[in-house]
Amino acid sequence: MTLRASLSGFPEWLPGGRVVEQQILDTARRAFELHGFASLETRSVEPVDVLLRKGEVDKEVYAVRRLHDDDESALALHFDLTVPFARYVVENAGQLSFPFRRYQIQRVWRGERPQEGRFREFTQADIDIVDVGVLAQHHDAEMAMVMADVFADLPIPPTVILLNNRKVLQGVYRGLGIADTPSVLRAIDKLDKVGVDKVRDLLQAAGLTAQQADLCLALADIRSADGSFVDRVRALGIEDPLLDEGLAELLEVLEVVNHARPGAAGVDLHIARGLDYYTGTVYETQVVGHETFGSICSGGRYDALATDGTTTYPGVGISLGVTRLVSLLLGRDLVRASRPVPSAVLVAVVGEESREASNAVAHILRSRGIPCEVAPAAEKFGKQIRHADRRGIPFVWFPDAAGDTVKDIRSGEQVGADATTWAPPDTDLRPRVVVVAEGDEGAT
Amino acid sequence: MTLRASLSGFPEWLPGGRVVEQQILDTARRAFELHGFASLETRSVEPVDVLLRKGEVDKEVYAVRRLHDDDESALALHFDLTVPFARYVVENAGQLSFPFRRYQIQRVWRGERPQEGRFREFTQADIDIVDVGVLAQHHDAEMAMVMADVFADLPIPPTVILLNNRKVLQGVYRGLGIADTPSVLRAIDKLDKVGVDKVRDLLQAAGLTAQQADLCLALADIRSADGSFVDRVRALGIEDPLLDEGLAELLEVLEVVNHARPGAAGVDLHIARGLDYYTGTVYETQVVGHETFGSICSGGRYDALATDGTTTYPGVGISLGVTRLVSLLLGRDLVRASRPVPSAVLVAVVGEESREASNAVAHILRSRGIPCEVAPAAEKFGKQIRHADRRGIPFVWFPDAAGDTVKDIRSGEQVGADATTWAPPDTDLRPRVVVVAEGDEGAT
Repeated sequence: MTLRASLSGFPEWLPGGRVVEQQILDTARRAFELHGFASLETRSVEPVDVLLRKGEVDKEVYAVRRLHDDDESALALHFDLTVPFARYVVENAGQLSFPFRRYQIQRVWRGERPQEGRFREFTQADIDIVDVGVLAQHHDAEMAMVMADVFADLPIPPTVILLNNRKVLQGVYRGLGIADTPSVLRAIDKLDKVGVDKVRDLLQAAGLTAQQADLCLALADIRSADGSFVDRVRALGIEDPLLDEGLAELLEVLEVVNHARPGAAGVDLHIARGLDYYTGTVYETQVVGHETFGSICSGGRYDALATDGTTTYPGVGISLGVTRLVSLLLGRDLVRASRPVPSAVLVAVVGEESREASNAVAHILRSRGIPCEVAPAAEKFGKQIRHADRRGIPFVWFPDAAGDTVKDIRSGEQVGADATTWAPPDTDLRPRVVVVAEGDEGAT
Repeated sequence: MTLRASLSGFPEWLPGGRVVEQQILDTARRAFELHGFASLETRSVEPVDVLLRKGEVDKEVYAVRRLHDDDESALALHFDLTVPFARYVVENAGQLSFPFRRYQIQRVWRGERPQEGRFREFTQADIDIVDVGVLAQHHDAEMAMVMADVFADLPIPPTVILLNNRKVLQGVYRGLGIADTPSVLRAIDKLDKVGVDKVRDLLQAAGLTAQQADLCLALADIRSADGSFVDRVRALGIEDPLLDEGLAELLEVLEVVNHARPGAAGVDLHIARGLDYYTGTVYETQVVGHETFGSICSGGRYDALATDGTTTYPGVGISLGVTRLVSLLLGRDLVRASRPVPSAVLVAVVGEESREASNAVAHILRSRGIPCEVAPAAEKFGKQIRHADRRGIPFVWFPDAAGDTVKDIRSGEQVGADATTWAPPDTDLRPRVVVVAEGDEGAT
């Protein structure tokens, strides 16, 4: 088992699971940097009122306070990385060059009810681009292309980035004469969780007529892998300039992404996103074959989130749900780590008085980039080999004044070796993440 | 300026500062993995009572609670990575192989009064080794050697890892007939902060005679780069078996470390460490020339911290204070990032209708590991070059049906280039951290 949570909603991985998480983080970071996103971290806390202004449900926020200190201004743990980033941009605008591109890999906290894929503490890997006044539309496609590059490099099943545009939804709702569009958005966002009938009830409770509710649900039912969604929306017979704008934006994003990364994106008009701050394109991502697991990568455009009252910094961003993805991969046994430790070599110790000689061999191997550790005790070699085996270390090195040897403990092959020249095969140098074949059984 | 803290004690770096922090984190991670430490992360919260049992001052702990939820069991943010790790080991002992070696890079929180080098939220990079029942003494030297390897690879002034051993201190105090050794330790730990006279007052307030206090202070005054400290302690004329044991351990750690890494370690008997759980070797690290800044890397052996009541898991660990080190390097302008963005190349856009052609060039460069970004707007080339200059990007690529060219905007040199073969010089491929020469002025 690779997932532990002795506190519900606060997952911890065993070392093999952490290898999987690290590979996802490293792959994401590499792609983000290749696309010119600078790394950034923000503090974990924000003033409570900032979070509540931007958030959805205030009870999900974790307040933070020093014990025995009632005077301190109210702080809370951030529930996403977008709101803190918007605050950071406004505070530091004079020292950033725009359009500003950053990635941010940090934990966030939400006091939701824990369930499969939903945690109270989890890691996100976000990219965002913000500009001053106006942010060019082409960045909306760029977000999806960057994440498509991340997915292409991960040992995971195929994914599809599903697109929608808030302007399409709001344009239709407005065209239908609906005043309270936020309530409709929130109801539509619950489709996956509660189903069509309950959402219809919610829509009518929000004041919609049966006909209005049915049209909203008909809109949410439209999905396509190509531009055919436009005609299906038009067939609903609703007219609104915001709808026209949204359809044009959505079509452009879909076509640019799928031209550069064929099949990476699709359109799905039931995607609404829970957070209030989105104003245009919105994204969710399904893992093919695991559609009901929920989105592993979501985001959208927010044209009005970051502002100092005078200047507005519109942005677009997308967030990889790292913890959720890891929990899918490990929970459904889709991948495993080839070993849970970095060491490729255990350097044996002949006797405690010669530990320094073993340390010296290890030092040479490390200087050549080969991860290794020295045996913890000068036991019989058989015991030292079993120690390596238990830890998953493939090679054991035997220092010997007459000539060192190294043994592959899987094959039993033992050969003469010089620490200044020997190297393990590339596939053994570091732990790898391997895809578990169908029907394959065994322990990590 | 690279340090921002709009909330006192919660620092945030500008992108150039973050490049420095990332290099420190990457260097530490690489050394830790070369030494066979597996990566691990624990949740950020622990039950309040667990932290208070293991901590020093309860008012420094940040409690965490959902807004509008008074029923939830009391949680708090961890103040170090050792206590959560000890809890993790006890919980997961059945699935770990011992001695268990892990590194852990995470944020911790302490509600202390913010001042230079002291923050309320900061990042630590820890290594620890724990075993079942007994942990071999040689791991105490190993900790210091790993950190010496990290320091050797960092663009920082020379460092010295200062060693002491709680058994030396407690042996002397016991030999002097002092009952309340924890109070004496806490007083001695304050030497750097409040000075000798105030500590003498604290010692006498704890019930020590003037002579006992003077001997404690004389002990704390002993430091040496070699084994000569042993004779100086003996000259105090105090006899105690724990003292003998501590001196032998301390001498061994010093000699092993300095044999393998000459000059990396020294002995300083005024080091006590504030945390209660240390039982043997303790470490602090000074940056030469910045001794008053405080320790950037500290830790020690804890033989009784991790226990399930039946089995005890003794450990030894050392923690690099990443945020503190970054604040020293940036605050005193010792290093700078060569540029604040990953991009080595800005691919110019001839016109919005040909953006896809520029995207295609960028895609090829990225597939060859060259970080790049596409110009945000199809402005005049002069404006696109100025955009690259503002962001610190050294090369601008001009797609051209008649043959692409690339310009080094520092030298102005422009040459024909093919995206499938051209590469920037190695020194330009990624942002580097450069040491600022004395008297050197300029912006990052």
